[in-house]
Amino acid sequence: MSTDALAAALAELPLVDHHVHGALRDDVDRAGLELMLTESDRPVPPWMTQFDSQIGFAVRRWCAPVLGLPAHPAPEAYLSRRRELGAAEVNRRLLAASGIDHYLLETGYGGAEILGTDEMARASGRPVDEIVRLESVLEDVARSGVAAADLPERFRETLAARTVDAVGLKSIVAYRFGFDFDPARPSDDEVTAAAGAWLAECARTGTVRVSDPVLLRFVLWSGVDRGLPIQLHAGYGDPDVELHRCDPLLLTRFIRNVQPHGVDLMLLHCYPFHRNAGYLAQVFPHVFFDVGLGVNYTGVRSDAVVAESLELAPFAKILFSSDAWGPPELHHLGALLWRRGMLRAMAPWVGSGEWDLDEAVRVARMIGHDNARRVYGLEGGA
Amino acid sequence: MSTDALAAALAELPLVDHHVHGALRDDVDRAGLELMLTESDRPVPPWMTQFDSQIGFAVRRWCAPVLGLPAHPAPEAYLSRRRELGAAEVNRRLLAASGIDHYLLETGYGGAEILGTDEMARASGRPVDEIVRLESVLEDVARSGVAAADLPERFRETLAARTVDAVGLKSIVAYRFGFDFDPARPSDDEVTAAAGAWLAECARTGTVRVSDPVLLRFVLWSGVDRGLPIQLHAGYGDPDVELHRCDPLLLTRFIRNVQPHGVDLMLLHCYPFHRNAGYLAQVFPHVFFDVGLGVNYTGVRSDAVVAESLELAPFAKILFSSDAWGPPELHHLGALLWRRGMLRAMAPWVGSGEWDLDEAVRVARMIGHDNARRVYGLEGGA
Amino acid sequence: MSTDALAAALAELPLVDHHVHGALRDDVDRAGLELMLTESDRPVPPWMTQFDSQIGFAVRRWCAPVLGLPAHPAPEAYLSRRRELGAAEVNRRLLAASGIDHYLLETGYGGAEILGTDEMARASGRPVDEIVRLESVLEDVARSGVAAADLPERFRETLAARTVDAVGLKSIVAYRFGFDFDPARPSDDEVTAAAGAWLAECARTGTVRVSDPVLLRFVLWSGVDRGLPIQLHAGYGDPDVELHRCDPLLLTRFIRNVQPHGVDLMLLHCYPFHRNAGYLAQVFPHVFFDVGLGVNYTGVRSDAVVAESLELAPFAKILFSSDAWGPPELHHLGALLWRRGMLRAMAPWVGSGEWDLDEAVRVARMIGHDNARRVYGLEGGA
Repeated sequence: MSTDALAAALAELPLVDHHVHGALRDDVDRAGLELMLTESDRPVPPWMTQFDSQIGFAVRRWCAPVLGLPAHPAPEAYLSRRRELGAAEVNRRLLAASGIDHYLLETGYGGAEILGTDEMARASGRPVDEIVRLESVLEDVARSGVAAADLPERFRETLAARTVDAVGLKSIVAYRFGFDFDPARPSDDEVTAAAGAWLAECARTGTVRVSDPVLLRFVLWSGVDRGLPIQLHAGYGDPDVELHRCDPLLLTRFIRNVQPHGVDLMLLHCYPFHRNAGYLAQVFPHVFFDVGLGVNYTGVRSDAVVAESLELAPFAKILFSSDAWGPPELHHLGALLWRRGMLRAMAPWVGSGEWDLDEAVRVARMIGHDNARRVYGLEGGA
Repeated sequence: MSTDALAAALAELPLVDHHVHGALRDDVDRAGLELMLTESDRPVPPWMTQFDSQIGFAVRRWCAPVLGLPAHPAPEAYLSRRRELGAAEVNRRLLAASGIDHYLLETGYGGAEILGTDEMARASGRPVDEIVRLESVLEDVARSGVAAADLPERFRETLAARTVDAVGLKSIVAYRFGFDFDPARPSDDEVTAAAGAWLAECARTGTVRVSDPVLLRFVLWSGVDRGLPIQLHAGYGDPDVELHRCDPLLLTRFIRNVQPHGVDLMLLHCYPFHRNAGYLAQVFPHVFFDVGLGVNYTGVRSDAVVAESLELAPFAKILFSSDAWGPPELHHLGALLWRRGMLRAMAPWVGSGEWDLDEAVRVARMIGHDNARRVYGLEGGA
Repeated sequence: MSTDALAAALAELPLVDHHVHGALRDDVDRAGLELMLTESDRPVPPWMTQFDSQIGFAVRRWCAPVLGLPAHPAPEAYLSRRRELGAAEVNRRLLAASGIDHYLLETGYGGAEILGTDEMARASGRPVDEIVRLESVLEDVARSGVAAADLPERFRETLAARTVDAVGLKSIVAYRFGFDFDPARPSDDEVTAAAGAWLAECARTGTVRVSDPVLLRFVLWSGVDRGLPIQLHAGYGDPDVELHRCDPLLLTRFIRNVQPHGVDLMLLHCYPFHRNAGYLAQVFPHVFFDVGLGVNYTGVRSDAVVAESLELAPFAKILFSSDAWGPPELHHLGALLWRRGMLRAMAPWVGSGEWDLDEAVRVARMIGHDNARRVYGLEGGA
């Protein structure tokens, strides 16, 4: 009885997805879809299929019915139905059925192949706000042509302009260097020197990709000055990452340094270090975390990941995200698996009388909705 | 049937709490209590309450009935009832209902606000033995006035005097430095040099707080010479900790160096590194561990933590502790949640015939009682 | 119903044990058996017994009936029955009942006390292929007498000869140094210099045991040149290991360097870092892993370990191994506990309709059988 009520409350909860990317604009073939159902950037070997994985099983189990197929179709049948409906209809169905009410779209990765903020708003019928990726702004500044000595000020101006309507910032220092960076703010002289070397390298190689730790620290601290919540990729990601250097515990000194500035730090994903993130969220008032991404990729096992996220952190410090990028299956599953994980965790607690039903519903609403609205100061939506 | 028998055996088991601190002497207001229900030392932000956390829910679920309230009262109702009963009665009820039979009280942190050994014995009606914190003894020596050259010998004499009746020692090297210290014993010359610098700093700043790694190693090795079991804070703790430097695996070389001395090393708390501690307890005969502290702060999720503690380590190498400090809710929950976790872990094993009921009861008694009595050579109690 | 079908399919699945050692040749006394039921190399202290551990309980629960005893006998009764049957019959019964169909025997550790490849084939009645330990080949070369300047070429020749019929290689760089080694291939000059120092040390000490990181890297890269799959001990092991230096994530750069060579890397054991291994297996096409060893030592808790192994990695990238060495109880339990863990993980997924029954059976067959046959190019067996 109380489980039914909890299930109903979770099913109806309008979610704020506080870290997500655009859905795919066009149809995709099987090889393309498989590559977007893994964090690997290597081709899927011919002796295997990414459909034989937790996320591949989850797509076939939970997304197929939304597209009008029975559960567990063969991959080819699934692809065929996807083509039949067309990308726009696939997006429309899977986004609508996700129950995500408000998207905070991180726009710094991927171009024409995914939907932008306005397009996501149209495809989903829901409000979309923007999260700006710090490193992308710096790379845009470099591409626009700038002298090293002018780079610090030009970056700050560009960031200010670029974030007039943004609700948050994002850092991928974990990808580009690791969390074992010097936690102090670099001086403008250090930044100028590093910028000189980097701009010369950009000119020489024709590639604009920042990985210099001084520059990465510079954009992070500029983000702190900007005053918006800063999302940090943490934990699990693609093979560029050295995962042991993405343990959020390595941020401890940086977190301490940021605290006096009153800026919130949002640790994203965190798997398999989500218990560590829960510790940081308990002891530092300005640290928050989610277990997005990992939830999708662990499929039926995501109930364990969600449950593990409900340990040390006060419930006001945990958020929901899908971290979906591309296939709307990822947006849909992010929401579905989080609801499922919360239900599986809390139902026995409520059933045994150890948690109160109303409190469980309130906790779900905090994590799925209220905390994000408070931290990002959101308007619109439910 | 066998689950009922197991539940009954666990409920009646007289526990030895091998690492615990004094209960709170006086009444406490809501802000004060919330700050003692987190390892954070930062004020709880106004937009949240620590009652909305696993431990906050656990207090309201399990402690409220001991104070004569229905389960799940509102925080204000709980605080009001607490005030009505008064600190002494709150202590008396929650300590008695914990079923803790014998307290090993670590006395190195906190002063007049918590009960000392004799007072805890009176409040609980149970025997209390003392664990002496090594760093506190050193800081007392510094405060008493000592020349650097005399410090090594004076510390050893003071430690001997201070531990005449103690059953164990405690080190907080994890807090003050991390486990990545040089595992070798420092020479007295090194210690004298470090002591000179430290005493000068104490004089200059007026603050006596040891964090020099040479001095921390000196007190540790002096503890080894003293021959009592040494408890080491490991894993989860307050924001002073750099948690990744508190992984007990970083102690591996120190553990090897200590083995010939025949001194037992007791790894405390260990969350989220408790599986690592289980490994050390399997391979090193003189290493033991518990999952106290983390059990309290994970509330209903502590069953997972307790279960994870029952993997690699032989059952003779696991102990029970609450690590409670201050609110007697923590003493109470430490015991209650450990019993609950053991029952939830073992009941299905016994139910399926994979474990024998009598063996399960014996294992619970080893972990909750016998192992501590053997390691610390306890008398008195059950 | 579907659970019964799944249980039956798992029970009948002919396993390929892709990393295992020989069974014990002779009878063993209680002290000897206890020492082989732990990764510790220290004597079991007199105040405890290794039978009071997860693996000790598992032996008495599951192996006793295979030897004709009721479940949960006292240790002495178990030892007595073992002696009564004799080592050959104990081996025969426990190996046969394991349902292991094909053994890939790692022959680099232990001599006359355990069975060799031919003997294991006779004792089990099943095909046995060989995995050659790289470091043992190097140590054999040193023992045979070789000048430093000749060592690189002599090692390559010996490895080629030694692996004519082998199906894979094994590295214990985790034991001898750690995974934090320079991931680049050493030059022959570096190798010759390191060999000079090592051979002199061997001569001086009379002990031939390689731990020099240049030589360890040399044999690893020679293994890559040999072109067979390379197994790497990762995670949990004996007290020689510094476990935090055996986290497979520390191999990330080496893994990247190996990828162009087309050689598969098999991460063995991995506990408690098996989630990290799952990440590597998802993002790198040539990385595979198993959770052997840890499964045995966690007994009834191994269902959690097996479930945790079913998260990020595609199902084509996970394998089964027992890592048994010596007592055939370990071979038996490795298989039994893996089947049990797979059933406990998948039965609720199938029961809820979240996984399809046929797919679950197929996944079990991939992990337990097909993946190993494909990676190692096996013939014979089921």
